[in-house]
Amino acid sequence: MTDTLHSFGLGIATLNREGALIETWYPAPMLHPDPGVTRAAGKACGYSGGNRAIVLEPVQLEALEKAISDSGDEHSRQLVHALQSAARPIVATFLATDEAPASVAEVYLKLHLLSHRLCQPHTLNLRGAFGVLHNIAWTSEGPIDLPELPQRQLQARLAGRALSVDAVDKFPKMSDYVIPPGIRIADTARGGRGAHGGEGTTVMHEGFINFNAGTLGPAMIEGRISAGVVIGEGSDLGGGCSTMGTLSGGGKEVISVGRDCLIGANAGIGIALGDRCVVEAGLYITAGTKLQLMDRDNQPVRTVKARELSGHSDLLFRRNSTTGGVECRANSTQIELNEELHRHN
Amino acid sequence: MTDTLHSFGLGIATLNREGALIETWYPAPMLHPDPGVTRAAGKACGYSGGNRAIVLEPVQLEALEKAISDSGDEHSRQLVHALQSAARPIVATFLATDEAPASVAEVYLKLHLLSHRLCQPHTLNLRGAFGVLHNIAWTSEGPIDLPELPQRQLQARLAGRALSVDAVDKFPKMSDYVIPPGIRIADTARGGRGAHGGEGTTVMHEGFINFNAGTLGPAMIEGRISAGVVIGEGSDLGGGCSTMGTLSGGGKEVISVGRDCLIGANAGIGIALGDRCVVEAGLYITAGTKLQLMDRDNQPVRTVKARELSGHSDLLFRRNSTTGGVECRANSTQIELNEELHRHN
Amino acid sequence: MTDTLHSFGLGIATLNREGALIETWYPAPMLHPDPGVTRAAGKACGYSGGNRAIVLEPVQLEALEKAISDSGDEHSRQLVHALQSAARPIVATFLATDEAPASVAEVYLKLHLLSHRLCQPHTLNLRGAFGVLHNIAWTSEGPIDLPELPQRQLQARLAGRALSVDAVDKFPKMSDYVIPPGIRIADTARGGRGAHGGEGTTVMHEGFINFNAGTLGPAMIEGRISAGVVIGEGSDLGGGCSTMGTLSGGGKEVISVGRDCLIGANAGIGIALGDRCVVEAGLYITAGTKLQLMDRDNQPVRTVKARELSGHSDLLFRRNSTTGGVECRANSTQIELNEELHRHN
Repeated sequence: MTDTLHSFGLGIATLNREGALIETWYPAPMLHPDPGVTRAAGKACGYSGGNRAIVLEPVQLEALEKAISDSGDEHSRQLVHALQSAARPIVATFLATDEAPASVAEVYLKLHLLSHRLCQPHTLNLRGAFGVLHNIAWTSEGPIDLPELPQRQLQARLAGRALSVDAVDKFPKMSDYVIPPGIRIADTARGGRGAHGGEGTTVMHEGFINFNAGTLGPAMIEGRISAGVVIGEGSDLGGGCSTMGTLSGGGKEVISVGRDCLIGANAGIGIALGDRCVVEAGLYITAGTKLQLMDRDNQPVRTVKARELSGHSDLLFRRNSTTGGVECRANSTQIELNEELHRHN
Repeated sequence: MTDTLHSFGLGIATLNREGALIETWYPAPMLHPDPGVTRAAGKACGYSGGNRAIVLEPVQLEALEKAISDSGDEHSRQLVHALQSAARPIVATFLATDEAPASVAEVYLKLHLLSHRLCQPHTLNLRGAFGVLHNIAWTSEGPIDLPELPQRQLQARLAGRALSVDAVDKFPKMSDYVIPPGIRIADTARGGRGAHGGEGTTVMHEGFINFNAGTLGPAMIEGRISAGVVIGEGSDLGGGCSTMGTLSGGGKEVISVGRDCLIGANAGIGIALGDRCVVEAGLYITAGTKLQLMDRDNQPVRTVKARELSGHSDLLFRRNSTTGGVECRANSTQIELNEELHRHN
Repeated sequence: MTDTLHSFGLGIATLNREGALIETWYPAPMLHPDPGVTRAAGKACGYSGGNRAIVLEPVQLEALEKAISDSGDEHSRQLVHALQSAARPIVATFLATDEAPASVAEVYLKLHLLSHRLCQPHTLNLRGAFGVLHNIAWTSEGPIDLPELPQRQLQARLAGRALSVDAVDKFPKMSDYVIPPGIRIADTARGGRGAHGGEGTTVMHEGFINFNAGTLGPAMIEGRISAGVVIGEGSDLGGGCSTMGTLSGGGKEVISVGRDCLIGANAGIGIALGDRCVVEAGLYITAGTKLQLMDRDNQPVRTVKARELSGHSDLLFRRNSTTGGVECRANSTQIELNEELHRHN
């Protein structure tokens, strides 16, 4: 039963005043965990199958340490040992299968799997996650369930403390939970929400990665990666550029960007790009944009709607600055990420 | 005299080293307050009419609690009771009339009235507020008057503390003061400054609401609401879109957006929109933009300047991707906000 | 030897677990310091020439106070006296010459010189600075060397503290180090990184100043100043506008903007602007954009590539909203910064 778990995590949880779990940090989440460990953990925690998040009693934590110690996983044993001194509740989350999450602890475990790069965007079932999560005030004193905020603000002010409310959102800022190796995020307020930052990715101040979205490898992100959008290795999103999501007028199709693409500053795409494509700075290509296809000699061939080129490679999109028409031709320039920046990432 | 106050608030204030009030938090500001309460409060605080902010002595607070207790407002009595334990000065701000604010405490009371949704943008006299306010370093240790910052930085560093300076601005981040119900703000650094967030509004990471501006109901804000701009219910501002303010090259006319509009990503408007208008992603309509009006059969009718259409409803603006000309026709598409997102707001 | 130092600073440093210096705050950096002070300091610190950062022992700090006291610089003496009570190591950084920085302490001294407005962008040798700096987690508990972050996160969570990771970056947020007089920065997460903010500059929420870049005087910055870009007095960068940097598809030429220019919201430039130029909202001018030059009577003269006009003054760039072609003509409008805002800066 615990031999083939989908995932497992031990976390430090935040409960609200009613005792409901509103947030969890898993220092070492596991995908397809070692059966020896989860068997031991399941027994100590009273796990009997299915997808369950169990808040542990001190005695269970002690039993868990002993059981994991016997399983030989010293790293996990040390973690369990440390967790026994926690000032907050400890939760053990067992996911037998990758089903739509039914609890906050489950959603958080999956967000951790994404941000730890154990899973790629779109490979986990997060259906309904938005409805499961609480709307939280993320403050300088930690996450606070929204109904409790006014009282906490009063307490802080009375004591002369500044309580900063940094976000009011269902999704957490994942960079407070895990920073995977080989990444830079200039402003983590914009990098979070279950994002997947590939090794070698730099997210600049204007860059943004939304939920269940991200990069697969080295990339320079100065534009916005909308929910669900995935960016291939070696691609470069210029400052303020837009990848059309499904929230604001975008369609239902989630778009993507291949390898070694360049989307210029303040440009935007409403279609998927293949590999080695370039969109000129300031040009927004929507699915309905009519494009004049140009041949190698820069002569017009025919007109197509941009959606017909969705996902194609080696294309360059620009607006003819004389005629104002949007054109597409073969991309012959080779994009290279700034060498110095990426060498030292 | 205190029977018809415009507004009233009890706040916890921050004074600078010279004893000047630089900031105030009002947990429960009142518009057109109950005369019973303000009569009692006025007597206890020595208020004798006009617009006054009075820093209270402990004995006045005690008298205030007793007086309010007699008036039967138990909620206010509890607040006054709690305030007696404050580590900071308590201020009672009485506004007899809505005049241009003469003190920091007055400006803050009006900012609170806006953010508590007790008043809509433009309904309060805030003339000259900018000149009344101090330029403040908003830090992890609370607001610090700018001339005092270097000394505070030195003290913090000597003690091994990290003093984060989050903003240097006259206007506060209002989300540290009040989060009205039914709102999400993904990055409060951008949602503040006397903003009015309507119930059901989501301000995404790229969204921004400036001073005396905001939304009147459910809305998805991924673009920038400039100072004074008001957005109607059901409208959707795409990522990075711009509503032209009066700071950077915009005119003197404050623009607005009606209900059920969609401004596409990276688009922008320099005119007001009526209801059910759409501006295509990436298109900036300034007041001087010449538009080709198209009929239902998509045939050109005549050319108009955009300012002639300011405030009109049911229009769709786009740039013809073949000719490069900007066109306007009747909007027949119905915009709907993302259902799942807004159901769980 | 110490008579002609390029610069000097006494700082409070952060070391990582291995004892390497990863960050330094210099409360009062000096350019071309008084020889009397540096001679005294050099002797007390055991400085023997070249560019050196010396971590001081308590006994050296005492000697330094005495030596500086003898030199008559009371302000520096007071600083040294205060530093003796620091909970962190104190570093004395002597730069004999402006060479490529070889240590973290050197880079930080130069970043301070820029942000204190002692040097203008591009006047300091910062070659290789990126490679010298550590990739740091900038947290609510101060800078943490990235390899140490997981352990620190665990400690904080065990103790019930929220450890916020605000950035993961090599460059610091300079507003935590110095706020020069006469500046407003609405969101310091975007104003930092060795930026030079001129007196009278306002950086709004959407504004951003990258490394070794900035403004030279009064300016309203609601757009992005890319690395190395310098903006002249009286210029106005509209919301979300872009100045093309060298990271994302930009060329190798660093661009600049002269005095009294206006770049409209969501516009962008890939060429330098001279003085009194205007770029219409939403228009992106790249170096390769073909422009129709118009005479005073608005008649076409000839076609040029934008790069030929790089750095020229008194030009107005716009896209003809009827033909879609990009045009350039003499700018006859006078741009004025919002008076009220700047009077009270």
